[in-house]
This record gives sequence, C-alpha cells and structure tokens, in this order.
Amino acid sequence: MQTLWAERFARRTRAMRSSAVRELLKLLEQPDVISFGGGLPGPDVFPLERVREASDRVLREQGRQALQYSTTEGYRPLRELVARHTARYGILIEADNVLITSGSQQALDAIGKVFINRGDHILAERPTYIGAIQAWQTYGAEYACVGMDEDGMKIDEVEVALRGGPKFIYALPNFQNPSGATLSLDRRHRLIELADHHGVPILEDDPYGQLRFEGEHLPSIVTLDARLHATDGAPYAGNVIYISTFSKTLSPGLRLGWIIAPSEVIQRLVMAKQGMDLHTTTFTQMVAYEVARGGFLDEHIKLIRSTYQERRDTMLRAMDRHFPEGVTWTRPKGGLFLWVTLPVSLSATDVLKAALAQKVAFVPGESFFPDGTGQNTARLNFSYSSPDVIEEGIRRLGGVLKAMMKGGAVAVAAGRLS
Amino acid sequence: MQTLWAERFARRTRAMRSSAVRELLKLLEQPDVISFGGGLPGPDVFPLERVREASDRVLREQGRQALQYSTTEGYRPLRELVARHTARYGILIEADNVLITSGSQQALDAIGKVFINRGDHILAERPTYIGAIQAWQTYGAEYACVGMDEDGMKIDEVEVALRGGPKFIYALPNFQNPSGATLSLDRRHRLIELADHHGVPILEDDPYGQLRFEGEHLPSIVTLDARLHATDGAPYAGNVIYISTFSKTLSPGLRLGWIIAPSEVIQRLVMAKQGMDLHTTTFTQMVAYEVARGGFLDEHIKLIRSTYQERRDTMLRAMDRHFPEGVTWTRPKGGLFLWVTLPVSLSATDVLKAALAQKVAFVPGESFFPDGTGQNTARLNFSYSSPDVIEEGIRRLGGVLKAMMKGGAVAVAAGRLS
Repeated sequence: MQTLWAERFARRTRAMRSSAVRELLKLLEQPDVISFGGGLPGPDVFPLERVREASDRVLREQGRQALQYSTTEGYRPLRELVARHTARYGILIEADNVLITSGSQQALDAIGKVFINRGDHILAERPTYIGAIQAWQTYGAEYACVGMDEDGMKIDEVEVALRGGPKFIYALPNFQNPSGATLSLDRRHRLIELADHHGVPILEDDPYGQLRFEGEHLPSIVTLDARLHATDGAPYAGNVIYISTFSKTLSPGLRLGWIIAPSEVIQRLVMAKQGMDLHTTTFTQMVAYEVARGGFLDEHIKLIRSTYQERRDTMLRAMDRHFPEGVTWTRPKGGLFLWVTLPVSLSATDVLKAALAQKVAFVPGESFFPDGTGQNTARLNFSYSSPDVIEEGIRRLGGVLKAMMKGGAVAVAAGRLS
Repeated sequence: MQTLWAERFARRTRAMRSSAVRELLKLLEQPDVISFGGGLPGPDVFPLERVREASDRVLREQGRQALQYSTTEGYRPLRELVARHTARYGILIEADNVLITSGSQQALDAIGKVFINRGDHILAERPTYIGAIQAWQTYGAEYACVGMDEDGMKIDEVEVALRGGPKFIYALPNFQNPSGATLSLDRRHRLIELADHHGVPILEDDPYGQLRFEGEHLPSIVTLDARLHATDGAPYAGNVIYISTFSKTLSPGLRLGWIIAPSEVIQRLVMAKQGMDLHTTTFTQMVAYEVARGGFLDEHIKLIRSTYQERRDTMLRAMDRHFPEGVTWTRPKGGLFLWVTLPVSLSATDVLKAALAQKVAFVPGESFFPDGTGQNTARLNFSYSSPDVIEEGIRRLGGVLKAMMKGGAVAVAAGRLS
C-alpha cells in the first residue's frame, strides 16, 4: 500500500535514477571485490596525520567558531587561499569571486538551480560526467552533445552545436571523467573564440587538473579567457565559471569544493545555497584551511601524482598483457580514469555481470552518455587500488573478456540471461 | 557590463532573495553588536572537549574511512542511532527509514525537489520558518497559510485550508521558529484526523522538540500518526515525514540533520541527494556518532535546557522592566526564540534600523510571512547571548522602542528616511 507521500512525488522525479556509480559504491562494502568502479582516491594517500593535527588545533584554538553556524559564502581564510592559489595561474581573483560548496557536486546543483530553465540545452562532451547529468535533470536540462577524441571535444562539432543556441558549454578539459581525455591547448583557444563569437558562456569543471603525471600543464579555460577579457586591475569578470574540489587532492570525505565566478554570479549562487544547506560545514572548512596552508597541499599533490602514475602504469601494463585483441583503451596523462572500448557487439553491462561473478567491478560507460549510447564502453579507475590488486583485477577482467569474446554471441546471450 | 553568465539567470532566480536572517549573521562579525538575530546556539554549550576527543579517535582508528567517499544514505551507525533514539517514543523505525542530510535545511531542499511541482500549495503556519520558504521558492511553491495563537495552528483555519487541496501540511509543532508557539496535544490529534480525512500528508519539522524547559513533553505528530496507522511488526509507513537536526543539541557547524520517512520515500530522497551533494560529510557523521553515543547526548541536552531556560527568564524579566506598554510578546516553554508584537503603526524594520545605531539587532518578523504581512512583528533569540548581555541588549532595545513610540509618527517617518 502506498503512503500519501508516495502518491505525491513531483513530476521531475520521474527522470531521477540512481547513479550506477553510486550503487557500485555499495559493492565496496564487500571487501573481497576488486573495484575499478568508483572515482575514489587511494585511501593510502590521505594526509591523515596532518588532518588529525589540524582538527585538534582548530578545536583547541577556535573550537566555538568551528562548531557554530557560519556565512553561506564560506570560511574567509579558505576563500582567500583558493583565490591566491588561482591567482598563481595569472588570473586576478579575489575572495569575493569564490564560493565554497559542499563538494563540487553541490556546485553543479547550485549552477543548475541558478541558470537552467526547463528545456534549456547544454552543450556537453559525449561521454560526460554523470554527476552533472544527475544534478541537472532536476531542472529539466537537455543536451547537445559533441564527440571526443584523444584531444578532447571535437571543435568542428562544437561549432555546429553552438548554432543551436545552447545555454552554456559544459567542459571537463583535464583528464576527463569518464574518458581520461585532455583538451589540447589549440582546442582550448578555439573553444573560447567560438564561445565568444556565439555569445555562449562556459562552465569549466576541473577536479583533476593538478593530477598530471607527464607532459606540460595546460592553462585552464578560465585563465585563457581572463587573458582575453582582462580589464586592468579589475577582478575577473569574464565568461567562464570554474569549479573544482579538494576531493581529489585532500579528501572527498570532507566534502569541500568551490566555484570561481564573476562576483555578481557568486551573489546569486549564495542566495541559492542559502536555501540548499545554509552553508558548508564550518569545522571541515577550517580543518582544510589548516591542512592546505603554508604550501603543504602543493607538496602533498606531488605524492599523489607519483602514486597514481605508478597505478596507471601498472594498469596499462596489465591490460597490454591480459586484454584480448579487439578491446582498446586510452592512455591518459593524469587523473583517475581510463576508458575502454569493447567490440560493438559486446555490452559492457553484460561484461560487468560476468566480472562481478569473478569479484571484479567497473562502471559501464553507458551512464555517461546523455543520449543513451556507449553500450560497448567502460570506465576503469586506477587510483583506488594498490598495484598488486590492480594487476590481479585486470587479470580477472581479461579472463572474462577473453571468454566472452571467444564464445561470441553465445557467451553474450548467456551473460544477458544471468 | 554584464557577463554572459549574468544575462542567463534562470527564471526561478527572480523569486530568490537573501534571507534577512542570513544577512544578519554578517553583523555578528562585528563583536560590539548584541545580536538577538540569528538562531544561533550559545557557543558556551558546545561539547567542545567531547568533540575533540571524538575527532581524534575517529581519525586515529578509522581515519581512512572518515576521509573517503561514503554512501548517500549516511553513516550506518549514525542512522541506527537516530532510529533507536526515535523508537524510544514508541514508533517502529529502522535505519532504512533514516536519511542523514547536510543540516535540516538540506532536508527541506530535498523534500521540495522530490515533492513540489510548480504551483503546488503548501499549507503552512503564519508565520513560518523562513528557510522552508527559501528552499521551496525554487520549486515554485505557493502557500495557503493558517493563523496561530499560543497553542499553535488554529485548527478551524486548517480545516478550511485543507478543502483547497494542498500538497502537504508543513508544521513546526514545538517552540516554533519564529513564534516560539507549541501545538497543543488536542490540536495535534485533530490535525492528524483532518489530514487523514482529506488525504493530505504532513511534514513535521522539529529542531527544538528536545529543548523543553517546563511542562510535559508532547508526543510528536509522527508518533501519534504511527499509533493510528501501525501495522504489527512493520516499520513506520504512515503519512508523516519527520525532520530534525543535531544543530540545536550538538553543533550547527557540523551541518547534520535527518529525515524519517517510509522507506520508499527515503529511496526517492536518496536519488535526489545524489545529485545535490553525493553524500553528507563522512568525517562529521562519524564524529557526531562518537559524541552522541552511550547516552552522552541525552545528558548534554539537560545542560542546554537549563542554560537556555535561564536566558529566556532573563530576557522575559528584562522585557517586563524595559519594554513600553503597547508591545506584547510570547512566553515560550522551550526552544530558542520569542516573538514580539509591536503596535500596528510601528514597522519592525524601522525599529531595527534605530536599534542597529544602538548596537543591538533582531529579525523583523515580516520575512517569516509568506503573504508579506507581519510588518509589526519581530523575532528575538535568547539562546546565543549570556544573561548579562541579554539584559543590556533588552535595555537598549527598550530605549529605542520607548523613543519611537513616544515620538509617534514623527519618529517612525525619520526611521524610514534613514
């Protein structure tokens, strides 16, 4: 029997579905499953001792402030730290250009709330970050998708899509989730030019930019846009909103992200955030500030880079060894993920079912395609597991793939029945 | 010059306005202002030492879990603690009936997202909690308001309003924010009967229920509803969603609240929360569990009760002494607030302007009226300041009121010009 409440779900909930990625997190509670599923940092790179010292110091010295309500904009020293950090890349940012959010997921939700009218089209990469799709389906977003290659969004497709008048461009330029692809410098310039020409603003989502293992750091889209639109001495007021997070450099469990935007946009986002959660946890903002300050975060990121580079290399070597011909994958220069393409006849969801029987998990790529394609793709995370676990997991996954590809249609059909 | 982003705010943002209460929090940064404005707990009742010990223990013993992503539903031991705590009042609740939220403000936002279609009418008290109005304006809520007296919602007005077919009833039965009023037991029974008869569900918002200074604890609406709809041995699946928070009993800076609902409703709320912030801060959930467990929270609440009772009594005595004839106020039996009614000719906003010149602040009541009335009302918080500060603040406010009421229309006009 339905309760009165269950009879009354809003129309927008019909589009809601649980993220396959989030559901997979539940599998991690089973300690014997090797998971390439979630986008989890390696727990061994958390700066645990420094967080413990910082928590203790904050509670000893500013405890009553840490446990009290605080302003919606965020803890001022943390906003200033983010502003200084961003200014290093040559963009003039003040604390008033920074809003602290409860993870970058909340940044996406707030941006949806403040900008998206039902039926608005968003120009997005295909595949794109599933969390954005989830956040924006509430506001009735639709998508104009552009294809990607190893250099990121295909700019000729962007040009065509811009003629349709999208509300904004959603770009993950560095080590994209899910594909691992990075937008080339030349394409960054062309993207900004095209956006300017068509009068369409850009949302740059950059959780992984600092996690580059090799090659040169590329300037962010917001930095390139600032160079184009800079007014002497005036803080940034260009056409890019930039979002990032401490989740991949410090700790996701603290739930801390931020938005950088022209101050008039920040003010509107602050009004939205008041209704969303009043403000982000005071205590963890103060702890993150104490942890990050004094150059610690920069040093710590070097450790993360070398750890993840080793894991990526281990995964790539194991794939070379264990994956059958006909399966291809990307070789990202940073981040947390690589992207696998199966033969078109093979469904990644079927492979996952068979893989789970072998106690190994990943995310079928389909969830990352707003247009419902991508059935033969998969995202593999290499940051979470240690090298020996990665080696073993890829060996098992390779066995599953070989069996299914050797068996052909028969094995696939069996997979569907299971 | 507007940026491309600022030209593109969604239609729903036209209704957004910054909460007067939140704006007032900024005044608290000026240490010389006596604030009766925010709904802040007294910082001297925070269990600082226990939080420090708990943080240290969590980071030492479960640090890698505390800093990692976790499930959207919330930290299981904390959900179980909330379920046990609720079950004490005679309602069968399991952890699956509990969703941990980032403060009860996020609970309101999630409920709006999952239930409110544009144009839906919510049956609400007049005045009602401003945070709900803020959260729900995003989803296009409208209001059917019912008047209140010292026993809470006037039930004859509820009966009339129910005929209009509201989506749900929003009730704050205990020491309501802003009025301090408590819904009588008789009216609780009648409210449930009427809601049942008309097939309209109830949202019970109860941040202050445990902070009763005198008189007997009244059963919550969800408890009374459970008695009516209980099925032997089956967990609660009635027509009330109940929300509460650790903000008033433990710490608001930790941003922890919860929703109790039938599990099918929790499942839908979880999907919404995935898009909102993935999950609530892992670390603070684990800390709150460590702090609250073993009966500590119940003991701690006794300290809060006696502290706030003394402050309420101090404020009431000072008002008796310093406030001029023609001003009336409530004498709440618990909670954080009392409610002042000025002569109809006097605007509380004008009084606030004059009061700020005397370095004392409060919240004009107008913000709490969805229908834009209530200009001659004000909310005073008594939990935040120590008794001697309360005495001094009320003395100053009394002086302002006496001057304005003596000066009559002239003083009021001057206030409007300032």
